[in-house]
Amino acid sequence: MLTLKGRRGDVEFRVVDITRPRPDWLLQKTRGTTALPILETADGHILKESLVILQYLEDVFPERPVAQRDPYRRAVENMLTWLEREFCTQGYIWVMNQDLAGRDALRVGMLKQYARLNELLLEHASSGPFLFEQFGWAEAVFTPFFMRFWFLDYYEDFELPNEEKYARVRQWVDACVTHPAAQQVTKEEVVKLYYDYAKGAGNGALLPGRRQSSFTFEPDWRARPWPPKDKYGHSATDEELGL
Amino acid sequence: MLTLKGRRGDVEFRVVDITRPRPDWLLQKTRGTTALPILETADGHILKESLVILQYLEDVFPERPVAQRDPYRRAVENMLTWLEREFCTQGYIWVMNQDLAGRDALRVGMLKQYARLNELLLEHASSGPFLFEQFGWAEAVFTPFFMRFWFLDYYEDFELPNEEKYARVRQWVDACVTHPAAQQVTKEEVVKLYYDYAKGAGNGALLPGRRQSSFTFEPDWRARPWPPKDKYGHSATDEELGL
Repeated sequence: MLTLKGRRGDVEFRVVDITRPRPDWLLQKTRGTTALPILETADGHILKESLVILQYLEDVFPERPVAQRDPYRRAVENMLTWLEREFCTQGYIWVMNQDLAGRDALRVGMLKQYARLNELLLEHASSGPFLFEQFGWAEAVFTPFFMRFWFLDYYEDFELPNEEKYARVRQWVDACVTHPAAQQVTKEEVVKLYYDYAKGAGNGALLPGRRQSSFTFEPDWRARPWPPKDKYGHSATDEELGL
Repeated sequence: MLTLKGRRGDVEFRVVDITRPRPDWLLQKTRGTTALPILETADGHILKESLVILQYLEDVFPERPVAQRDPYRRAVENMLTWLEREFCTQGYIWVMNQDLAGRDALRVGMLKQYARLNELLLEHASSGPFLFEQFGWAEAVFTPFFMRFWFLDYYEDFELPNEEKYARVRQWVDACVTHPAAQQVTKEEVVKLYYDYAKGAGNGALLPGRRQSSFTFEPDWRARPWPPKDKYGHSATDEELGL
């Protein structure tokens, strides 16, 4: 969102190590909650929830609008955005699943989510690649998950089937993840950091027998080997993960 | 929303009997989906999802703003609105529960939802009764559920405990449901129509041994007796329900 607006430098980023207890300065700002991201405004107010923060940035930096301004177009955008929560939940439930027998049903559930996106895109933007002329609000909302869900490609061998009912959403995903404003994260980083999610441990929690979370800052993910792809049959040690 | 804007007459309402298959004219408009409400715009576009429709009405009738216009105030409103989906889901899961043993956990879950609202209201609007000066966007989003959840009062003996941690949200709920713009629905109507939800049948589905759904238009709910409160121990017949 900030890159699209040419405002990346107007917000100071602090990356938080989620494998450690939240520092006091952060807990004071959040009044005790641990969910991230949060945004501190210039006058010291704290905002929570990614979509709330996105809307705030859209409102305080209105010069290059990312969201639609026409009421009907905005409603179309909002109908697509509405699907983000279930889409996101489904992907996280799947990557964290540890029961091999449940895998097929989770794949089917994930495909259903993509099919819903496909339908809505076909109905409102059949030619594509984006919902409207440019990478906009809906793309800003979904792209982080399209990139995050590289963990499904890697740990669950998930790929969108080469079928007509996913053709339009495939075009959208490809256009989103290759857009110049969306190059902050790589598949390698996602796959290495999210190994512990693939083994069922979220939010920097520590798995049995391990001393380090895959989310740790040290050693840096670039210095580690790619984790084993087999999440159901094998539990990697710290050493195997280069931790 | 329309009443707040003095625009109730600008939208034609058609109430749909959800106990029957959706009529063809409706399915043509929705392209086959059955979820309601939908809104047809003046130029024939179809919008789905309540919050999308609310935002569209806010945008096309901007003269009496209901949502906040200042970016920070709007973000506060959006943080509260963000809680609506889980709040709503929790209430529906509880009313549809048929397992007496699960009831206490569901009550605890519902109370947690109210406690979250209480915290956010205390943080941003400690004096009340509304989030800002007047009944606004957050109130328009939550009030229908505060009224709908009268089914929990009736079928689950739910009431907010008289404790400090619910005091602010109780004040909010009271101010919302007694507001002049929120008088389209009564507790009696909610309780009578939602009897079948309380017995586990949603969306106008028919329960075993019954010929009529409690959502039917005929006989009118006003002509029926109040349903039995005991949802776990007894299944009322059509006759008992005045159907």
